[in-house]
Amino acid sequence: MKIQILSLFPEMFEGVFGHSILNKAQEQGRVELAVTNFRDYSTNKHKQVDDYPYGGGAGMVLKPEPLFAAVEDLKAKAEKPPRVILMCPQGERFTQKKAEELANEDSLLFICGHYEGYDERIREHLVTDEISLGDFVLTGGELAAMTVIDSVVRLLPDVLGNQVSHQDDSFSTGLLEHPQYTRPADFNGLKVPEVLLSGNHAKIEKWRRDESLRRTLERRPDLLETAELTEEDRAFLKKLEI
Amino acid sequence: MKIQILSLFPEMFEGVFGHSILNKAQEQGRVELAVTNFRDYSTNKHKQVDDYPYGGGAGMVLKPEPLFAAVEDLKAKAEKPPRVILMCPQGERFTQKKAEELANEDSLLFICGHYEGYDERIREHLVTDEISLGDFVLTGGELAAMTVIDSVVRLLPDVLGNQVSHQDDSFSTGLLEHPQYTRPADFNGLKVPEVLLSGNHAKIEKWRRDESLRRTLERRPDLLETAELTEEDRAFLKKLEI
Repeated sequence: MKIQILSLFPEMFEGVFGHSILNKAQEQGRVELAVTNFRDYSTNKHKQVDDYPYGGGAGMVLKPEPLFAAVEDLKAKAEKPPRVILMCPQGERFTQKKAEELANEDSLLFICGHYEGYDERIREHLVTDEISLGDFVLTGGELAAMTVIDSVVRLLPDVLGNQVSHQDDSFSTGLLEHPQYTRPADFNGLKVPEVLLSGNHAKIEKWRRDESLRRTLERRPDLLETAELTEEDRAFLKKLEI
Repeated sequence: MKIQILSLFPEMFEGVFGHSILNKAQEQGRVELAVTNFRDYSTNKHKQVDDYPYGGGAGMVLKPEPLFAAVEDLKAKAEKPPRVILMCPQGERFTQKKAEELANEDSLLFICGHYEGYDERIREHLVTDEISLGDFVLTGGELAAMTVIDSVVRLLPDVLGNQVSHQDDSFSTGLLEHPQYTRPADFNGLKVPEVLLSGNHAKIEKWRRDESLRRTLERRPDLLETAELTEEDRAFLKKLEI
């Protein structure tokens, strides 16, 4: 997979792209990451990329020309046309399902804005997807793009050491993950549940499923509406609700 | 404000903390950011921080001892006890309201996990808040913590150059932001709406409010349930719904 990023702050990506799973995935050849400063595409003599909003108001708005020029240039050089993704709070909310969808693409291009916003013509005529991380506001799209990229790249084949390890993730089953425990069995008087030390795998599986259901009911009951539940699951939930 | 972070990958933070608004806020003395590797608190001779999950299963689980020791040590050195925030997909969903709440604190401590998850005793006995960015899974808590920190720090006094500029943000009014336009007025035949060039401020304000309502209705009708709407707003929405 090839992932390109347009940003005014390419240095922001260094720490994240140079370490942890994103570094490993690049070394494995699973993903190619490239950050381009779209200020380089400004034809203005001051390399200006933003300007005052028409109609007045605080802050600056990203001009259409440099971003249109940058996207056209990167598209022209690409083997396959990329999905062009704008990170912004007005976009479609990012979910695990969207991460899985993007993980099937060959090429992604992220536009990271800064300042007050984008000229509307960028939104309407340049991008294929507008994605929001959630109902909060960031200084720019950089952290949002890095977050989406991390969640997509970890789904690519062989990137996580253990192939099965993302099948238990929260949301992959439609439920929150069950509690996890590791050694010591007794930490300052705080003990691991007996069942996990029992060696009885059927009991352990049942406990984990039940605790996953319990946590989802307590914290995110909305997820139960779409999760795939068995008769046994429903019986357990009914008991909890009494 | 003092913000401390516990992570196994401190280098991941360098690009983000060293540039853009987070760098500026540190230089202004508005925020102090410090990242500590909690592997330094492992008393194990291999500096181990994770172990196999009790009851079996793929992946590794973060052990309680190093994180308890790290948090206790940082708390003991702190002037004021910090909020201790665990970044995890099972947590409370992060919103602009939560960002505003955290921006009023003196001291925050973020725990960033990696691998399969945290020993449940960390969740139950060490943290004050569990926060999730959204319904998706990341390799670790680092990007989630950086995202929350960015959204909190930009709300601190004087950090954004223009004091008014976060009052128009999406979500600050309960609605999505209206479209923005800047020069040129005609970009390859794509034109800026006439009203924005009119100089009639009352008309411009009305157009912006209406477009903000229109966009929210089209993209995030759920937000309209809690937004503060005037009689005029309701009349406009009614017209759109026909």
